[in-house]
Amino acid sequence: MGRGGVGGTGPPGGRIGVLWEGGGVREQCVGIGSCRDNQELTDVERAIETVINQFHCYAVKGQKEYLTPNEMRELVVQKLPHLGKVGCVGPLDEKIECMGDPDEAKLEFGEYWDMMGDAAKGCRRK
Amino acid sequence: MGRGGVGGTGPPGGRIGVLWEGGGVREQCVGIGSCRDNQELTDVERAIETVINQFHCYAVKGQKEYLTPNEMRELVVQKLPHLGKVGCVGPLDEKIECMGDPDEAKLEFGEYWDMMGDAAKGCRRK
Repeated sequence: MGRGGVGGTGPPGGRIGVLWEGGGVREQCVGIGSCRDNQELTDVERAIETVINQFHCYAVKGQKEYLTPNEMRELVVQKLPHLGKVGCVGPLDEKIECMGDPDEAKLEFGEYWDMMGDAAKGCRRK
Repeated sequence: MGRGGVGGTGPPGGRIGVLWEGGGVREQCVGIGSCRDNQELTDVERAIETVINQFHCYAVKGQKEYLTPNEMRELVVQKLPHLGKVGCVGPLDEKIECMGDPDEAKLEFGEYWDMMGDAAKGCRRK
């Protein structure tokens, strides 16, 4: 289960960098924002970076390009435990079920972002 | 410009609560996660809460139900300064331009989430 690696590094690209340092468990993945001018990211930028980084951490089979349904389910269980408790991610479970083969189907970043949005909308409705 | 208020409170709903305490400037809006069992939110849950909370903070005219184009532009300028610098939000500027009357058109939460996703995708492509 070795998942060590560094990807999407920052300068000299000027992008928000995502550093991934996995050492066997996903909880060790960390996201570090870096900007061309080394100024601190805002809270919203850090939040966006966190959501991006989790996708990269769990997208092992797809090498950060896609999540399998099983990887998405693992992410939801481990990273959205409270949203699950209050019923925000119920629709996500159903969507994951409908994605197809649990180890083969591909959930790309845009779909992942949409599913996180569904969780967010669920919370706003409560 | 008084924006004080508390909305979307938590228990007894068991939801992720968003407490909004504005005192004249949006920077004073704060998001506080609260769960039924008072356990700490994960980093991803806090990130989602942050993105939700910013929508609520800037959606003054629409009373947290929608952003006007001008409010969305203000949010992008103030809260996504680095994404702007590295060119991730260029497409957002164009989308805001196309939304219609800057003070009247309505950007609902789902559209806002999609636009934040566009910024995230832009960063991943860099």
